[in-house]
Formats: sequence, structure tokens, C-alpha cells
Amino acid sequence: MTAITQNTGTAATTDAELENHLAAAHVAAAPLAALRPADRAVLLDTVADALDAAVEELVSLAQQETRLAEGRLRGELKRTTFQLRLFGEVLRDGGYLDARIDHADPEWPMGAPRPDLRRLLIPVGPVVVFAASNFPFAFSVAGGDTASAIAAGSPVILKAHSGHPELSRATAAVVVSALSAAGAPEGTFALITGTAAGSAALRDPRVKAGAFTGSIPGGRALFDIASSRPEPIPFFGELGSNNPVFVTEAAATERGSEIAEAFMGSFTMGAGQFCTKPGTLFVPASSGMVEALRTAALPGAAPLLNDRIQSGYAEVLQGLQSHPRMAVLAQGEDPLADPPSPTLLLTTAGDMLAEPHALQAECFGPTAVVVEYDDGSRLPEIAETFEGQLTATVHGTDSCDVSGLLDVLARKAGRVLWNQWPTGVSVTYAQQHGGPYPATTAPGSTSVGTAAIERFLRPVAYQGFPQHLLPEAVRDDNPLGVPRLVDGRREGVR
Amino acid sequence: MTAITQNTGTAATTDAELENHLAAAHVAAAPLAALRPADRAVLLDTVADALDAAVEELVSLAQQETRLAEGRLRGELKRTTFQLRLFGEVLRDGGYLDARIDHADPEWPMGAPRPDLRRLLIPVGPVVVFAASNFPFAFSVAGGDTASAIAAGSPVILKAHSGHPELSRATAAVVVSALSAAGAPEGTFALITGTAAGSAALRDPRVKAGAFTGSIPGGRALFDIASSRPEPIPFFGELGSNNPVFVTEAAATERGSEIAEAFMGSFTMGAGQFCTKPGTLFVPASSGMVEALRTAALPGAAPLLNDRIQSGYAEVLQGLQSHPRMAVLAQGEDPLADPPSPTLLLTTAGDMLAEPHALQAECFGPTAVVVEYDDGSRLPEIAETFEGQLTATVHGTDSCDVSGLLDVLARKAGRVLWNQWPTGVSVTYAQQHGGPYPATTAPGSTSVGTAAIERFLRPVAYQGFPQHLLPEAVRDDNPLGVPRLVDGRREGVR
Repeated sequence: MTAITQNTGTAATTDAELENHLAAAHVAAAPLAALRPADRAVLLDTVADALDAAVEELVSLAQQETRLAEGRLRGELKRTTFQLRLFGEVLRDGGYLDARIDHADPEWPMGAPRPDLRRLLIPVGPVVVFAASNFPFAFSVAGGDTASAIAAGSPVILKAHSGHPELSRATAAVVVSALSAAGAPEGTFALITGTAAGSAALRDPRVKAGAFTGSIPGGRALFDIASSRPEPIPFFGELGSNNPVFVTEAAATERGSEIAEAFMGSFTMGAGQFCTKPGTLFVPASSGMVEALRTAALPGAAPLLNDRIQSGYAEVLQGLQSHPRMAVLAQGEDPLADPPSPTLLLTTAGDMLAEPHALQAECFGPTAVVVEYDDGSRLPEIAETFEGQLTATVHGTDSCDVSGLLDVLARKAGRVLWNQWPTGVSVTYAQQHGGPYPATTAPGSTSVGTAAIERFLRPVAYQGFPQHLLPEAVRDDNPLGVPRLVDGRREGVR
Repeated sequence: MTAITQNTGTAATTDAELENHLAAAHVAAAPLAALRPADRAVLLDTVADALDAAVEELVSLAQQETRLAEGRLRGELKRTTFQLRLFGEVLRDGGYLDARIDHADPEWPMGAPRPDLRRLLIPVGPVVVFAASNFPFAFSVAGGDTASAIAAGSPVILKAHSGHPELSRATAAVVVSALSAAGAPEGTFALITGTAAGSAALRDPRVKAGAFTGSIPGGRALFDIASSRPEPIPFFGELGSNNPVFVTEAAATERGSEIAEAFMGSFTMGAGQFCTKPGTLFVPASSGMVEALRTAALPGAAPLLNDRIQSGYAEVLQGLQSHPRMAVLAQGEDPLADPPSPTLLLTTAGDMLAEPHALQAECFGPTAVVVEYDDGSRLPEIAETFEGQLTATVHGTDSCDVSGLLDVLARKAGRVLWNQWPTGVSVTYAQQHGGPYPATTAPGSTSVGTAAIERFLRPVAYQGFPQHLLPEAVRDDNPLGVPRLVDGRREGVR
């Protein structure tokens, strides 16, 4: 998404405050890592309960600062506390440790005896998380990055987003207080504000990973900081995505107007401020879908998150709609006003093949581009022109031959959808919210779903240790009851 | 390790040849990825069989080009073909796919219905692998990076090491011919030579990951190329490691001379040219271990891999032994000659705390540093001065309280050993060969062991798909029989 992290400048964290937070996080790393996973789950549950208890205050602050609707915000907070508790379940299960035991084997066919080796994942150490503006709960102070990092056992330095400073402070106060009440090590979590403090934290040698949700320029700048440190560290940035949607001819014939109507709802959901907003819709020419979209009722204007998003949106929209290969397909009365009416632009597959980069620019807000195509067999070729995506969607029928298109989309995107819409990212075991660059800076990772915990872990193998010196998860008697791979076989599997 | 990739300049891959290889790898990616895992296992088995059949030619070439002993080379080739076949087992098992199925759930407690989501790991696409000099089989043309990338389903562009050009060509010929005979897509594997071709390949947008074993400067330069591309890609570099060893007072008292003798063998194994050579040995003062090391028989001189390694070794050794905080503890007759006699240097814990960076410099060859300490309770503090390591070792007894030291070492190293030696890296399920920078550029990864395959995979989730359009691994009927996480529970677990 395209919201940009910026310091309001009024109450930025000072160097001395930052040093205190970093020192505390460094000290907290060992005791937080040493907690049994089930005990860290209690921390997460306690934070979730405290956030639920503070719902009235938090939602009220969020409404004031983000201009999002109350119902949406209540739902988002529910999702956020569910997410914290789900990571608690992940910890109690223990599969996330990827525990492996190889017993010593003098006959190992490699040509040399196999020593006793025991491998598990341990926390990476302190993490800097950069909050996003568009989900003031789910991708902010107590959002998925914070939840998964603390679940992993890594202390969090949270760089607040300037778009909701009071909500950030209030949420952080709830988190810090709940962690303290639950017995978490001091320094497990701290809030910082200001871009300078965020960059300084990311440069600090005590910090071992970074996570970010935001714009391509902002995310790339932070990725470059993380990668150019004397000790480079992993940086998990979720940046931009166009989220193209392809409607096959058969689907357009069968239910073109239904798809058109649902698309209207999806690209304007949350005023188009979702990372997964479908930004481009491919429809067959002469299917009537373009006409259906032209005449469909456009949703009303809705306010954007803040003035910077509003002005950025207006700028990108003006650039897109004045492009010689673009026409306006449908538009409300005040497309550039605050709040802006939604806009649908129109172009052709040939134009998109000619200038993919310009016509696929992400527009953060209630605008999308409709692309007419004549020849469905060229959709794979058109799909190839897209950069890495969070999502890609096909609307088809059972009779469609879409295997070529799906092959391309699986290479391009982290999540591929069939006859559904990408907005709304369910927090589950099999969710994948990530993809090749620029969707993310780490295409092997996800920032939503239980696998998000993997970002803040690293493997360690113990060789030749007596039982009493081993981490509990890889002792022979398995006191934590975690699932394990023992001599190459899954323990406890029939 | 410290061997440096360098082009001999005589037969470097031309731009046109490189373009052909990259185009072929790009085209091969889809059909290679589409092979069932068990069918890719056949490719690996066929390559392993062909290498075993070519043992006489390959070992003879390796002897000529690397000056390593025949027995060592035969053992290394055996390890290499074992490794290829072990990745075949990984493919037949299917657990590496991390397949997850969430069935649609209208009651999902997040506050919104859960869609049907199915997640698995797919190949990243073409990979550039930079071969190492010190293991001309196991970390070269058909080594662990190549084996794990092809296992993952990612085509390999292999940048040969200039230290063994004829062996590289001969090995590549065996690999290409075996892959072709087994029906692999053309372009699954190609050999390139020359640093310019290697860098150009890493910059090419069709390449999606890089892997490297070599020096810190060389690896960092390539990491920087990978990270600064318009589309940054993951780069798995295994660079340098000192591999410190800590002997507790109790262990020194109990078996100091035995440990001293074994250390002599470990730091001079392979003429000290192992990534995991123990470069620093901490021993208690007044335990007699320093005297035991001074008077122990030093192994004889053994040739280094090539002239560049020899001159680099002599330069680093001269710097170390002329350092004012270093003394020579034991040294053969010709420590700087070709071949060099082994050298043991001596310093104190106080000196190391004062100048850790200078005294911990990696010396690729038969040199190690012995550090006398007075106060065992300060070992954790001393261990903190080390950068990221591939390995760290403790020699102790059951009565030692080493938990503080072990906590530090697990944070610093990818593999921690107890009463064993780090040289000799077994290829197993629980092996971990990696660690925080500069041990590797990707501390969450390993380059040895079955988990090495994870480097060349990325997750994709399929949402709302009918069964016939899903990848086999995530269909309800599980035709491949892979282990899966279904609705958060491991399928088939009691």
C-alpha cells in the first residue's frame, strides 16, 4: 500500500529515550526467549484481553484520527485480538519450532558417522516494527508484526505511524501494561515516534530484524538501510501491489454484471485503502461488462485516512487519468475532492502491453483501471507484465482452460484467488500475505497468518549435548510435547 | 571461509553464452517446477549415480587442481552423491512443501468467515550458485547448493570456481548429461565461468536467488549486488567464521592433554581450509593446557589449495603473529613456506577483550589462536565479543555450570557443540550450517542438511479454488501423500 510513514515532529523520541528502549530490548531478549512457548502465549492472551477491555477508548480515538467508520474499526480490533490469541495457539502447539532430532548413527551412509544433532528455531533478537496507517489496529501497534515477533520471543521496538499518534500511544499503554501484568520482561515492547528514531533503531547493532507495511519508496529506503548495515539484517517489508483481476470470457458471459457489481464493492472497500485492493480488472471486449461497469452505481465518497494520503491520491489519479492511453469509464461528482468520489478508468490490453509500468501504477484510494481484451489466449502474456503482487485473481468457470494463466500468476503473486475478491485477508494457518518484490522485500515470508512467526526465528543445532543442557523442545523425553522430526520421521505420525 | 572467487580469464563465459544459459534457465523453470517431487528425485538420483560412475576421472582431476589428498577427495565425492540422494528422500517425503489446508469456515472467530485457503511452497525460479574452492565436490558444481536448488525445482546457473576449472567442466558435463538422460528440462543446469559472468547473472531479472560459499569481501560484494537490484533477491552467502572453542576448567583438569591433541587434529584438518576450522581455543591458565599445546607434536606441512590461498594465508598469518598482543606458542619449521607448517599463536583473555576484532581475524589455513583465561566466569563476556559464527564449541564436564555461556553461543552461532569438534559437517535432517552475519548473509537459513532446500522456495496460497485447478499437494484427496496441516492440525497424527 502507499501510505507513507512520516514524523509529525511534535513529540519525536529523543536519542536518549531511544537508547533506553534499545538497551531494555537487548536485555529483555534473553529472558523473553527463555520463556516456555506456552508462557509467552499467556502474554499474548493478556494483551488481547486488555485491548478488548479498552475497545471503547481505542475505537473512539481511531475514529478521530483515521476517519474510518466505527463498525470497520470495531471489526478490525476484534481481528487484532483474535490474531494475538491465534499466535498463542501456535505457541502451545509448538510445531513452529521445527524441532528436529538426529540420533548419533555410526552407520550413516554419508561415509562418516552421524553425530547427535538437535535443531530448533530460536528468536532472532530485538525487532523494529514500522506501523502502517491504513489498519490502525491490525497492522499497527499491536498488529500482526508485533504479535508474531513477541510470539517468536523477540522484543519489539514499535515505530508508530504519524497518522494516528494518540491511538498509537493509547494502544502502546495498554500493551505495556498488560505485558507487565503478565510478567513479561521489561523491555519486551516499546513505542517510538519519528522517522529519525525509526531509522536509528533499524541501524542499531542490537536490532536483528525489521518489519514494515507501507509505500514502495519508504519500504525500499528502510530495506536499503537494513541491507547496508555492517551486519545486514533481514527486513520484511510489505510494500506495493496492484492485485490484478482477470475475468474470463465464460465468466463474463455467465455472470458479468454480478462480477461488475462485486468489483465495485471491492475496489472501494475502506475507500480503496487496502494493500489488496483490486487495482486492475481485465474484462473481455464485447461482453457487455464495460457497459455494466459504466452504468453501475458507484459507491459514494468516503474520506481518506489523512491529508497526506488525500493529496497523494489526487496526484496519482490525475497522472493516471491524464495518460493518453487512459479514458475515464465512470466517475462520481468530485473525484479529486476531499472526500473523493470513486473513479474507474478504462484502457485496452494492447495499451497495457505497450506501457505496463505506467498503467499499473498503484493508486492508493478509490480508483481502479478496467482493461478490455479481445483475445483471452493472450492473458498469460499480459499477466507476465506485472511485477510481484500480494494477490492475483481469476474469475472463471469450471470449463475455462486457465492453467497457463494460473502458472504465471502463481509465479507473480503470494495469493491466487478463484471467483473471490482479494480484499479481506483472513488470519489463518494457510494464509499468505506476501509475494515477489515489490509486494514484499522478502518473498519467502508472510506478514499475515500463523507462518508470519517464522520471520523472527533462526535455526540453531546442538551437537553432542547431554540431555540436561539441551533446550526442552529437543530433549528425548519431549517435556513440551512439541511435534518433531526424529531421524527423518515425524514423531507420533501413524 | 576465505577462498576468493576469481576468474582465470582464459575461458570466461561470453555475454552471448550467458544470455543463452539465462534464457534456457528461465524457460526450464516452469516445467522443472511442474515435475512431481518424486520425479525430481529421480533426476537427483541419476546425477548421483553418474558422478559415482565417474569417480576415477573426477578424483584424478581434483587431485591435480586442488592438491588435496586422494582419500579425502573420494570421501568428499561420496558425501556429495549421498547428499543428492538425501534430497531425493526429502522430495519423496514431501514435508518440505509445508502444505497447509484451511477449509472454509463461516464460524471462524476472527469476525469474518474464513475462505478456503491452501498454501504450499513453490520454487523461486532460476538460481545463481557460486562454487567454493575448498570443497571441490561438496560445495562446488554438484554440491549442496546445486542439489537443494534442483530439489526445490529451481534451475541452476553454476558459477565455477577458478581454483578447479577442469574438474568443474568435467563435473558439469556429468551433471548435464545425467539430467538430460533422466528427462530434465533443458536449461535445468548450466556452468558459467568468470567473475563478470557471475555478477551479470546475479543482476539478471530472470534470476530469483543467489547462493555462495567463500570469503567475506567476495560474499558481501555479491550480497550487495543482489540487495541493490531494482528487484532485490534473496542471497544466501556463507562467508567467514572463527569457530571459537571454550575449554572449561573442569574439562582441562579432567582431560586437558586429550583435548589439546584433538584440537591439533581439528585445526589442521584439510590444511586448516575448512569453514568450520576452530580458529580460537580458550583454555584456563595454570591448567597445563598451554604447555601441553606447546609441546604437542604439530602435524606436518600440507599444501594449500592454490597459490592465491597460499599468499593470502601468509599475509594474514604475518599480520597476526606480529600483533603486539600475540606470541607464537608453537610453530613448525617453515610456517610461511609453500606448503606451510602449522602455527599456534598465544594471547590472553584480557588482550582479546581489548582488541577482539584484530585477534579474531579469520586465518584460512593451518593457524589457530590459543587464549589463556584466568576467570571462567568471564567467558560469557568474552564470547559476546565474537561476531556471528557457523559454530561455537564448549568442552566441559557434567558438573560445569555453562548455561550462561551456552546462551551467548546460541545467539552467536548456528551450531553449538559439546565435547566434539566443529570440522566435519554431517549432512542430516537436523544439521545447521549458517549463523548470524558474517557467518551467513541470511541467518535464518542453512546451506547443509535437508533444510537447505527451504532457501529456494516461496509460499503461495490458493483461495477458493475447485479441486481440479489446485496443485496436487493441496487437493483434498492428497494424491502425493504429503504430510499437511489441515485446519491447524497435522494430518495423520495420532
